[in-house]
Amino acid sequence: MSAFESTIKETAALIETALDDFLPQSDGPLGRVVDAMRWGALDGGKRLRPFLVIAAADMFDAPRARSIRVGCAVEMIHCYSLVHDDLPAMDDSDLRRGRPSVHKKFDDATAILAGDALLTQAFEILAELETHPDGNVRCAVALELARASGKAGMVGGQMIDIYAEQKDFDLAGVTQLQRLKTGALIRFGAVGGGLIAEASSDEVAALAAYAEDLGLAFQIVDDILDATADAETLGKPAGQDAEMDKATFIKLLGMDGAKSKAAELVERCKSHLDPFGDAAAPLKGAADFVFERKS
Amino acid sequence: MSAFESTIKETAALIETALDDFLPQSDGPLGRVVDAMRWGALDGGKRLRPFLVIAAADMFDAPRARSIRVGCAVEMIHCYSLVHDDLPAMDDSDLRRGRPSVHKKFDDATAILAGDALLTQAFEILAELETHPDGNVRCAVALELARASGKAGMVGGQMIDIYAEQKDFDLAGVTQLQRLKTGALIRFGAVGGGLIAEASSDEVAALAAYAEDLGLAFQIVDDILDATADAETLGKPAGQDAEMDKATFIKLLGMDGAKSKAAELVERCKSHLDPFGDAAAPLKGAADFVFERKS
Repeated sequence: MSAFESTIKETAALIETALDDFLPQSDGPLGRVVDAMRWGALDGGKRLRPFLVIAAADMFDAPRARSIRVGCAVEMIHCYSLVHDDLPAMDDSDLRRGRPSVHKKFDDATAILAGDALLTQAFEILAELETHPDGNVRCAVALELARASGKAGMVGGQMIDIYAEQKDFDLAGVTQLQRLKTGALIRFGAVGGGLIAEASSDEVAALAAYAEDLGLAFQIVDDILDATADAETLGKPAGQDAEMDKATFIKLLGMDGAKSKAAELVERCKSHLDPFGDAAAPLKGAADFVFERKS
Repeated sequence: MSAFESTIKETAALIETALDDFLPQSDGPLGRVVDAMRWGALDGGKRLRPFLVIAAADMFDAPRARSIRVGCAVEMIHCYSLVHDDLPAMDDSDLRRGRPSVHKKFDDATAILAGDALLTQAFEILAELETHPDGNVRCAVALELARASGKAGMVGGQMIDIYAEQKDFDLAGVTQLQRLKTGALIRFGAVGGGLIAEASSDEVAALAAYAEDLGLAFQIVDDILDATADAETLGKPAGQDAEMDKATFIKLLGMDGAKSKAAELVERCKSHLDPFGDAAAPLKGAADFVFERKS
């Protein structure tokens, strides 16, 4: 098993446990929203973003207690965005990670609120003393996550995406869309790990460059998979992009062009981590994983 | 003009300007979500929560630059909750503050995203250095706001409220509902003002007690108004509570009982501020305003 594979398996388990602790069930009247938050956040994805946080922070020997919390925060943001994205008014998806989406399992109102609560709790976690003894460090991480998640980050990207179905994007447009809609949180993963570890600004910049290239490669591979895989492997409906005639990297570069662009980005992204030596092995392995994944 | 009236007028204008600065319009593809955020946040309410922040912080001579930012953060949280609350899946309201709600003016997806972006930006504002030079103070404020807004605060209250239409609440239930759904953010207003001003824990506790009583009085008066006012005065559809046979303070206490409970709370809430002397005049005036308001 590679350094990446063992690390991401380990960090996924740590994140699952931590998220479970952050979302304790209760029988009282407040229990329903927590149940819905748990449905949206637990037993799910690869936990790529938290892995980036933890693997980046590990390079500087930051205490895992801190990086796990930052990982939970970014995962809650990621999960809230999926909960809202699946809503009838948005992508209208019944299925997510092979299971009913939150609004199908519960109802639309509960899903809206569960998403809101997950987003809110991400910032609660970052603000707490346990995340880092220095409030300035906690604020630096929170500020980075808020910017990555907000109107000029992920949410801005989602807004553009809604109109992507009706617009002809050129390569610059699709790249900007990716950079905001999916790239911003991936970038935060690596940057957040550097910040919680109190890395230097040069080190944080190298992590940012790594993650920007990684994120773009991730999205191109996502487009390739959507065009080629089936629903069972993906865990969600396939072929949606083509059905909606959406501008994607495939449409603009062709399948071969997309595959070679992804390959180039993966090599470049790993090279940003050369200054970190062997400690960068898990993060470099992540780049290879992104390129080779089937779902 | 009373101390309260002049202060709330002044703070509303300061908040309007600050929110406008925080939400700069743009022609680019990211402009739509900002337009929707502006629709949801500008030219609107009384700005009661930011007023509480600023008036509380004023008692300790905190710089207005700081309290205004905290006021904007809580107002963005309040406004995002109204945007989401008005959605078809939630309260399904076409009208808000006398104008089309955000999803009617734009569309449902844009409203969901605009709400998400407002919530996110609240925490961005608090994390920034301009809010307070000490990161520990910024985190204390952010933590308080996150808890007040999340699954055990405002969102938890909204979740309970959705089921209120189908449940028979007793007085304890309706009080808990109020405490979470509307009281938590009102409580944050006063507490946040104390925290940004670095007040002592006793001083913050007095502010909390003031705001808890204020918030409950506010909700009782809200129920009284819903039962008696017309849509034009309210700026939103009237009589909704009775239509849905919702458990309210009126239903449980009777009109006279509700009016006298509100009066008692208003007196008690003002008394918590006696230690602050004349500096508490605007906050005491707020309590009288809450009791006397017609919309």
